[in-house]
Amino acid sequence: MIKLDEQAIENIAIGAALLGTGGGGDPHLGKLMAVQAVKKYGPVTMLDPQELDDDALVVPSAMMGIPSVLVEKIPNGGEYKRCFDALSKFMGKKVVATMPIEAGGINSMIPLAVAAQMGLPIVDGDGMGRAFPELQMVTYHLDGITASPMAITDEKGNLEVLEAADNNWAETLARVATMTMGGSVIINIYPMTGKEVKKSAIPNIMSFSEKIGRLIRKSMETGCNPLEDLLELTNGYKLFKGKITDVLREARDGFNFGKAVLQGVEEDKGSEFELEFQNENLIGRKDGEVVASVPDLICCVDLETSIPITTESLKYGRRMLVLGIPCDERWRTPKGIETVGPRYFKYDIDYVPIEERMKGVVTK
Amino acid sequence: MIKLDEQAIENIAIGAALLGTGGGGDPHLGKLMAVQAVKKYGPVTMLDPQELDDDALVVPSAMMGIPSVLVEKIPNGGEYKRCFDALSKFMGKKVVATMPIEAGGINSMIPLAVAAQMGLPIVDGDGMGRAFPELQMVTYHLDGITASPMAITDEKGNLEVLEAADNNWAETLARVATMTMGGSVIINIYPMTGKEVKKSAIPNIMSFSEKIGRLIRKSMETGCNPLEDLLELTNGYKLFKGKITDVLREARDGFNFGKAVLQGVEEDKGSEFELEFQNENLIGRKDGEVVASVPDLICCVDLETSIPITTESLKYGRRMLVLGIPCDERWRTPKGIETVGPRYFKYDIDYVPIEERMKGVVTK
Repeated sequence: MIKLDEQAIENIAIGAALLGTGGGGDPHLGKLMAVQAVKKYGPVTMLDPQELDDDALVVPSAMMGIPSVLVEKIPNGGEYKRCFDALSKFMGKKVVATMPIEAGGINSMIPLAVAAQMGLPIVDGDGMGRAFPELQMVTYHLDGITASPMAITDEKGNLEVLEAADNNWAETLARVATMTMGGSVIINIYPMTGKEVKKSAIPNIMSFSEKIGRLIRKSMETGCNPLEDLLELTNGYKLFKGKITDVLREARDGFNFGKAVLQGVEEDKGSEFELEFQNENLIGRKDGEVVASVPDLICCVDLETSIPITTESLKYGRRMLVLGIPCDERWRTPKGIETVGPRYFKYDIDYVPIEERMKGVVTK
Repeated sequence: MIKLDEQAIENIAIGAALLGTGGGGDPHLGKLMAVQAVKKYGPVTMLDPQELDDDALVVPSAMMGIPSVLVEKIPNGGEYKRCFDALSKFMGKKVVATMPIEAGGINSMIPLAVAAQMGLPIVDGDGMGRAFPELQMVTYHLDGITASPMAITDEKGNLEVLEAADNNWAETLARVATMTMGGSVIINIYPMTGKEVKKSAIPNIMSFSEKIGRLIRKSMETGCNPLEDLLELTNGYKLFKGKITDVLREARDGFNFGKAVLQGVEEDKGSEFELEFQNENLIGRKDGEVVASVPDLICCVDLETSIPITTESLKYGRRMLVLGIPCDERWRTPKGIETVGPRYFKYDIDYVPIEERMKGVVTK
């Protein structure tokens, strides 16, 4: 049991933005939302999954929708309680904790704001170990846990409680509701018992995010690039150093779709890199060859400071380093690859773990 | 308190199809659904609104969506209980009765099937005194009663409980959910107290539908056209006798939109009539001149038998009589006209009550 204060939250926001692989929302905005809640309601207690009673009811909290919409359509705070209360009421059982469904600049922060406001602890775990764009892309789904009953709300006061026929229907129905409510909403989803959390969650994502964030923030103060320590901490690989020369971006069907093109600098001078995303970075190609793909993490960081760069911040001229980080082992099972592998996202390639792709490649 | 048996239900289905003004769904299919439920669960008790306790909770039941979709996507019966139970549970109060929100071949029948299955009485009243295409087009809305909490479900098991910011949001959110679930769903909506029902419902729509239906069905047996009796019972007017020469039809945004063109026969020989609809008939023009418009009822019946014809049954060559029937007085108030008058449906004309339009017109 750990108390999370403002400093911890600032660290988590930055670290989770890296693990958000371009998606999961803007860490600065996320941080403001969580810090505001903690200032008002006090620090949040973080529990290890193992501290949960087996029959405890845990309800994850998140933002759903288009990250570039959220930046201009910020929750007013009333959403958290309305959504949480509606789901608790519908389930007719006391909820003892909330938790994230993914790591991301916004989606690691919303559960903290909810926890602070509801006076509940947050569980140190998530369902992705990174961020993914769709609701069924969680380890909970791999274990047959249902996304619904779930609740959705917006800043206008609209609220839906949803019981879907299956997790793909949950995604479909929640996505159209999100779009109708303006493209960005607050949700409570995948209600679970303590036993299910212990079995299915990816543990310690919050404390891992905190470590990453602390490393990056510390070097922001000293002016050194924490890259080598970051690679060691995440088992990551340098994929490409470059400057953005083109960004294509489209908000469609409730997502940010897009592509960034980079021209190499320093040791990658003369090469080109293409990065495609659907909220999160999906695939990276160097000179036409795939060098990394979902479910492995493809993360962009500033070339000088290693501060994470989200997809909505990609812009012409930005100099950045593209990193590849191995995903959780559960995403490498047949059902994991079926759920979040390259073919699900309509890329006609097999998934090859980044460690294998990087064998023999000199990355330093 | 009256017990509704199979004969009463057959009568109501036909009578309500007339008051459905082209919308409200196919009476044959509606009848089958209600009769099946009554056969399984026993006759339904019908209460006059005045028999309700002031604090009794009443929850109307209906089908929402595109009538021409419902014809091929028939509820399997599991929807009624799932939807009703979810809303009762969400409201945390015992529901004592259901009722229709409109008169129509389907929407007068669904509440009967729900009542039979739930073992509850049905209230003899509705919110339109006819059928209208959108959820906020009810007398309840005129009196400030909210459509939500409402529940929506489909035959696949998807369920949504919705609490909307206002009644227009309820319409918007429920409409996209309906479309996503396949274009036709079962809903429970406008939960009301007995006191609200007494004040805001249009009373006795079921017994009025029964009277109309009985008249038409009786003449089906004798082979006589009950037209004159029908006009007297409904205070109706003959608008046009003709043969359909063209039907344009489009399922768009969750509705059946369309237009039928009729060439006159008998006393209307040489004239032309245009009928436009959005699920329900909205406006009728004879030789280019408006002769009737919403909120007055524009009803098509078979030329020989006076059996009502719904918009999805309009087809080339069909010989029919177009009737005009005065709407409930509440639709003629400023808020009534704003909610369901011609301008709401984007017609640039003022509403003129049918009695005034017909002054001096010889209709026999």
